[in-house]
Amino acid sequence: MTMSISTTPKVDNGVNVTALLGAREALEKAPEAAQFKWRASCEWLHGTHSRSAIGSFFGLGAEQSRDKTFTVDADHPQVFASEDNAPTPVEIVLSGLASCLTAGVAAVAQRRGIQLHSVKATLEADMDLAGILGIDDDVRNGFGVIRVHFNIRADASEDDIKALVAQSQKRSAVFDIVTNPTNVFVSVN
Amino acid sequence: MTMSISTTPKVDNGVNVTALLGAREALEKAPEAAQFKWRASCEWLHGTHSRSAIGSFFGLGAEQSRDKTFTVDADHPQVFASEDNAPTPVEIVLSGLASCLTAGVAAVAQRRGIQLHSVKATLEADMDLAGILGIDDDVRNGFGVIRVHFNIRADASEDDIKALVAQSQKRSAVFDIVTNPTNVFVSVN
Repeated sequence: MTMSISTTPKVDNGVNVTALLGAREALEKAPEAAQFKWRASCEWLHGTHSRSAIGSFFGLGAEQSRDKTFTVDADHPQVFASEDNAPTPVEIVLSGLASCLTAGVAAVAQRRGIQLHSVKATLEADMDLAGILGIDDDVRNGFGVIRVHFNIRADASEDDIKALVAQSQKRSAVFDIVTNPTNVFVSVN
Repeated sequence: MTMSISTTPKVDNGVNVTALLGAREALEKAPEAAQFKWRASCEWLHGTHSRSAIGSFFGLGAEQSRDKTFTVDADHPQVFASEDNAPTPVEIVLSGLASCLTAGVAAVAQRRGIQLHSVKATLEADMDLAGILGIDDDVRNGFGVIRVHFNIRADASEDDIKALVAQSQKRSAVFDIVTNPTNVFVSVN
């Protein structure tokens, strides 16, 4: 006699949800381990061109060093009389928002047993240059509004796909940073 | 007879302030040209790894295309059970803040006739993971606080150097984005 075993297809979005749930359990018991410090240092190169280095961070109660240092260059575009060597800082922030929400979609989908096939986020942000140019003090320097559009193909209903994005948004660090105020303390020399 | 001409040493931080002042004058007269749209699109690769592409933007009343597309990868670190292929989204945002303030320092210094020799910004941001892990709803997902420290060598007094940073902060798009709330509208499929 052969047994017919019904197997559910294994969902694999490449996110280790078991480890993340374990981390949550562990950090619930050790709140001081959940205190992270993220870092970047930025070196001025020339004009508006700079290079940020991203390496170590602090977390789980200890210094966490990587075996590599990431760099992110930034510059201003030619219409600002710059050399356009790299994306502008505001475009870099948009990419940070996009990647944070996208990683969240992958993690939540894994947790909910939803196989993703493709995820693409398209972002556009309005900015009135009258702010940064000092033309009008009533105009803010940053974005007026940001629009994010997700195109997701997954083995799930449209409602379940929408719920993935909603949950990612709810737990996104960068979404919070952009939508809510954060204190920044600046010191010199 | 020879004339003795006293020449002030030419300050060159690589920023074309004349063009920027011209732009301000032009945009003051044509406010619709100051309406910019910045964009990024982000493709999910695997797990928490994604790649953002940054190319065209809208400004000066027209589509502005670049002759290249910039990419910014993002991932989560190994302590989050990820592959650490790239900086985390929050580190990318820190680099955006750093580069925006740094470009501002260079531009303001140029405007004020101050020769810069070196500018380095060191950023650190606190984050309590109890937020993003859903352990404590009273803990925010994003940064608790961001500390920025500038080390600047320039032909100027300490007070004038501090004033450079203060002015950069006052006109920084990313500083505004991080310190003030921005509406983000998310749509799916």
